[in-house]
Amino acid sequence: MGPHPAVADVRRAVRASLTGLEPGALALVACSGGADSLALAACLGFAAPRLGLRAGLLTVDHGLQPGSAERAHDLVRLAPALGLDPAELLTVTVGRAGGPEAAARDVRYRALDEAATRLGAAVVLLGHTLNDQAETVLMRLSRGSGSRSLAGMPERFGRYRRPLLGVSRTRTEQACAALGLEPWKDPHNVDQAFTRARVRSEALPVLEATLGPGVAEALARTARLCRDDADALDDWADAAYAEARGLGAGLDVAVLARLPGAVRRRVIQRAAVAAGVPASALAAVHIEEVERLVTEWRGQRAVDLPGGVGAVRRYGTLIFASNLS
Amino acid sequence: MGPHPAVADVRRAVRASLTGLEPGALALVACSGGADSLALAACLGFAAPRLGLRAGLLTVDHGLQPGSAERAHDLVRLAPALGLDPAELLTVTVGRAGGPEAAARDVRYRALDEAATRLGAAVVLLGHTLNDQAETVLMRLSRGSGSRSLAGMPERFGRYRRPLLGVSRTRTEQACAALGLEPWKDPHNVDQAFTRARVRSEALPVLEATLGPGVAEALARTARLCRDDADALDDWADAAYAEARGLGAGLDVAVLARLPGAVRRRVIQRAAVAAGVPASALAAVHIEEVERLVTEWRGQRAVDLPGGVGAVRRYGTLIFASNLS
Repeated sequence: MGPHPAVADVRRAVRASLTGLEPGALALVACSGGADSLALAACLGFAAPRLGLRAGLLTVDHGLQPGSAERAHDLVRLAPALGLDPAELLTVTVGRAGGPEAAARDVRYRALDEAATRLGAAVVLLGHTLNDQAETVLMRLSRGSGSRSLAGMPERFGRYRRPLLGVSRTRTEQACAALGLEPWKDPHNVDQAFTRARVRSEALPVLEATLGPGVAEALARTARLCRDDADALDDWADAAYAEARGLGAGLDVAVLARLPGAVRRRVIQRAAVAAGVPASALAAVHIEEVERLVTEWRGQRAVDLPGGVGAVRRYGTLIFASNLS
Repeated sequence: MGPHPAVADVRRAVRASLTGLEPGALALVACSGGADSLALAACLGFAAPRLGLRAGLLTVDHGLQPGSAERAHDLVRLAPALGLDPAELLTVTVGRAGGPEAAARDVRYRALDEAATRLGAAVVLLGHTLNDQAETVLMRLSRGSGSRSLAGMPERFGRYRRPLLGVSRTRTEQACAALGLEPWKDPHNVDQAFTRARVRSEALPVLEATLGPGVAEALARTARLCRDDADALDDWADAAYAEARGLGAGLDVAVLARLPGAVRRRVIQRAAVAAGVPASALAAVHIEEVERLVTEWRGQRAVDLPGGVGAVRRYGTLIFASNLS
């Protein structure tokens, strides 16, 4: 008799995420004890040795809820039985910068990075599910950005991998039940103070009710398609940026004028950041104003950009420079 | 004293949509009597003669609500006072094909097309607002399609133009009030049987509550950005399709292999439709299976596509043909 179908699903996803690793490489799982990362941890512990890999567990205690330290200790004690060794508890202190969710995320990744480097891990698996992806897309949507933003969370970034972006949260709960594991219900998940939790408990259910079932799956599929679109446009923009720069300083307006707007604005974004504009401060309105130096040229003066950079058009060339005026 | 700011907003949007028309050209407005299209109608009647254009009104009676015929007659009688002449009432009978909303839309556009052609109109203005666009994006999102689908409603298609995609519904209500016009509250808008109405009355308010204000604006901005992205990718795919076809039958696998996935799949879509696959029946899974003939080639047999078309790889060429097997 094979494993429970939910367990088989999670194991398959884990195996797919481990392809390409060297024999004997160490794969860690970042485990909160919630159903998603607990199922992931158990299936990593099962799959890794069968692929000639080592597997370990990291759990981060943010110290934000009573009992979190005890729960983290329980996880570390459980790890060997799941086939996970080493297993470490990382205790962190969460600041307030950027809001509670962002602050917890930043400090968590710093701790995971440090431990992964110290332990010589090849990859760190994260337990984000299809539902997490759907929530992310919905939150990004509300910022009104384009394809790149709607692409949601990537399956891979740096040493991190997210094997479960195609697996629903319900499926990970079923897998835990089938494996006799009792996941921790993170109190954050029902704490309405966090946007993500409200998206999960309020927005998505209403969307399911009004638009029909399968909204989470559709949002995750949207993310995948938008990621591919954004990747392709980035390829094009990289090539167009190289062409527009040529050998001189600045961008050739004639090259920019031939590009579709979506690519032209990506090229302008690259040039502005290369000239010293902080990427986080560069808004669509700035890029569009620079674009008008190409598409609606009527002798405008320099466009002021964040970071003290200006963009100006001189003799068919768009020049980005500090303290221009 | 200038016009009310809301009236000024709508007039500015109408003027922008009328650029490029020949002197004396006729611009029609499709008016339901709702705030959006009533404000649009009044501002068209004001702006058109000042731009050397003629303006007229069309209103469609679907016969779906008691009193709709009377209301449509009222509109036609009001039209001359708004500067709109000719003004016509188009009575249609709505079938059930594709659901009530789709059926009403199909029959409405057929009637508008016929009248526009008969009257020699250069353009027909539609009253869709920023909020309609946001609702459209949300509904499209739930289908899990990519950039093109999220692009929402275009500002222009054929002879139709949508001047108000950047103007909120509230703004059109304010414009009507300022002009002393009493819009009709379409009972459909509060009829929960229609998905759009439920998105409007349930989904968007919950998203505003969970994600913060400005969700409708963000969705409309998303639509604009996704449209530009999709346009650029279509340009690329058109060029790549021409290159992959070369002079022979079928697509050059070597050309396809070099493309990013988002562009490759668009090229395959074009080739499949050109070979006779009905575009409406061609799903992402079909295109992805054909794509694997390029990216994961291991001697697969022909891929069956809707419309009796098959795709097969032979000697580095992807061939689409009827009754292949």
